[in-house]
Amino acid sequence: MGTNTELTREANVLTRFLDAGDVAALVRGVGVRQAIVQVAGCVREDFLRWHEFEKSARLASHSAVGVIELMPVSDGNRFAYKYVNGHPRNAQFALPTVMACGMLADVQTGFPLLLADLTLATALRTAATSALAAQAMARPGARTMALIGNGAQAEFQSLAFHAMAGITTIRAFDVDASATARLARNLAKVRGLEIVPVRSVRDALSGADIVTTVTADKTRATILTPEMVQPGMHLNAVGGDCPGKTELHVDILRGARLVVEYAPQSRIEGEIQQWPEAPVSELWEVLAGTAPGRAGADEVTVFDSVGFALEDYSALRWLHATACARDAGRYVELVAMPPDPRDLYGWMMQANAEAVTPRACESTTAAETTEST
Amino acid sequence: MGTNTELTREANVLTRFLDAGDVAALVRGVGVRQAIVQVAGCVREDFLRWHEFEKSARLASHSAVGVIELMPVSDGNRFAYKYVNGHPRNAQFALPTVMACGMLADVQTGFPLLLADLTLATALRTAATSALAAQAMARPGARTMALIGNGAQAEFQSLAFHAMAGITTIRAFDVDASATARLARNLAKVRGLEIVPVRSVRDALSGADIVTTVTADKTRATILTPEMVQPGMHLNAVGGDCPGKTELHVDILRGARLVVEYAPQSRIEGEIQQWPEAPVSELWEVLAGTAPGRAGADEVTVFDSVGFALEDYSALRWLHATACARDAGRYVELVAMPPDPRDLYGWMMQANAEAVTPRACESTTAAETTEST
Repeated sequence: MGTNTELTREANVLTRFLDAGDVAALVRGVGVRQAIVQVAGCVREDFLRWHEFEKSARLASHSAVGVIELMPVSDGNRFAYKYVNGHPRNAQFALPTVMACGMLADVQTGFPLLLADLTLATALRTAATSALAAQAMARPGARTMALIGNGAQAEFQSLAFHAMAGITTIRAFDVDASATARLARNLAKVRGLEIVPVRSVRDALSGADIVTTVTADKTRATILTPEMVQPGMHLNAVGGDCPGKTELHVDILRGARLVVEYAPQSRIEGEIQQWPEAPVSELWEVLAGTAPGRAGADEVTVFDSVGFALEDYSALRWLHATACARDAGRYVELVAMPPDPRDLYGWMMQANAEAVTPRACESTTAAETTEST
Repeated sequence: MGTNTELTREANVLTRFLDAGDVAALVRGVGVRQAIVQVAGCVREDFLRWHEFEKSARLASHSAVGVIELMPVSDGNRFAYKYVNGHPRNAQFALPTVMACGMLADVQTGFPLLLADLTLATALRTAATSALAAQAMARPGARTMALIGNGAQAEFQSLAFHAMAGITTIRAFDVDASATARLARNLAKVRGLEIVPVRSVRDALSGADIVTTVTADKTRATILTPEMVQPGMHLNAVGGDCPGKTELHVDILRGARLVVEYAPQSRIEGEIQQWPEAPVSELWEVLAGTAPGRAGADEVTVFDSVGFALEDYSALRWLHATACARDAGRYVELVAMPPDPRDLYGWMMQANAEAVTPRACESTTAAETTEST
């Protein structure tokens, strides 16, 4: 991407917009596993330049029924943010629990380069980051993963661990058996990956090298208890991601090596909210090799994942590069771009008022009419 | 707006999108002064229910050349945020100094109801808020306003004070005389409002009842010094709006009644950053009548305006209501909306990969092809 080109004003300075269908088609075009692998490459690159980013915990607005968050991040070259909600009871309105969109902007000018649905990209980057962590934390030769919670993220976690962490068997459990059936059906044709529906968490964990928990209840749940966890297991705890929402019994944490994305945020939102003084490493340290992901074959390791804005930055830059290469989406006039930037008024007065006035405007006065000429 | 209707899933749950041209046409259709008056009505209503809002100072990401901000606010019914930049040197790229867009979402579900350009709406709400403050703070019978800084906001400030605060003469000064000429030209046909170009700040202030400063330099400037200010003047200080950017000499503040939008933010960003312990009232108190806007005819009053997220909430809800009434803009699939919310993967696999694959996809593997069937 040539910065000069971006900064030179074209006849039309427009923002690329990828709606949800555009993103889905783009991911399908690349291939979903290939997309996860590419996003994982972006996440790894960005985590390895951790200190170049201006980081902050997300800005969360909580209500009785859910949360709405803004997640900003910048590396001094690009500014990215994600809008995302979490409403566990949205199913009653046939709406997704999580919906997301976001923007990538040029720090040099503030111009928004890309606006995109991030619902799908969030699933990709979450799965990609989980698999990246597992590469560094799970025992070599891991083949079987227990997958507890078979909701919207289940296929993406499955494909990520298949493509990146050597998983060939997934023992899948959900309190809703139809969710597991859907997962098995959706991935039935993926070569070399077997989905085994099971009837309990305990059954899922039988023989598992890796355990992924990705349940959705906004409660302090205890999906895993200490006696279920075998020496050497890697736990990928994805579902606990806000205050009051956890999945692991605290004693599991006390006996394990703990890795998080960004400690200040994870201490508020992650499994470790149950244990404020928990010793943790950050994923970037593990990826950089400055902190161990695992000390021995019998160690229990936990990636306590809550989702961090940097991962969305990675997803957004992957979307932007991929969309540019494939000319995906369309251009929109997201922000006003008067030919003379100081003449916002004059630009506005060129607009065709008739275009959006289906009937006579009741509020037009004689003075307004005069002014409009 | 019927909440039930919004919460009932329609065949297509889509987000209304107003691009910059749509907003301009909408404002033109309503009439720009009428739009300012209507937005001011929304701002007043929202400031009068100040305690219903969850407020926070904006989230600012500063760089050497500018700032990018996210400004969120919620009243438990609607969540709104604005993305906005401030890059004083953008003119060299023929880009506006300030570009903005934002979203209005339903707190009950997190669903984004409206996405819109806010560049123009920001100018409207800033002018509307300035005029609201002046109604409560300027001397009765004010007719003449000095307008220092004749950039993109000048016409909107002029029209707001004409429509709402009785101003009939504007003495306009800018270091760039062509900016003043543009302002005079743009407003030449507005009945009952005279724009008088002058050659200095001092000249502008001659006989002025109200002084509006809306300059753009990101520096600690001293546009006004104490000896210029006459007893009874109302100062509407709009241009100082981030750390290190001010327009008034601190001694002007020390002798004046000070009103701000939201004190915690204004102490960081406003004129009062020069005087940390300044005694201030908040605008909502003045509008509610619980704090005086002016104590006597000789008092100097200052509205130290930095722009607050609540004003953008008001602008967004005005845009949304007005766009709905006039069926403006278009609907977009801003966030993924799978028919079965838990089946994000299945929804994605329905997407037409060909639609965005102009050439054979180099990354498609045999496994991917199988999976796609």
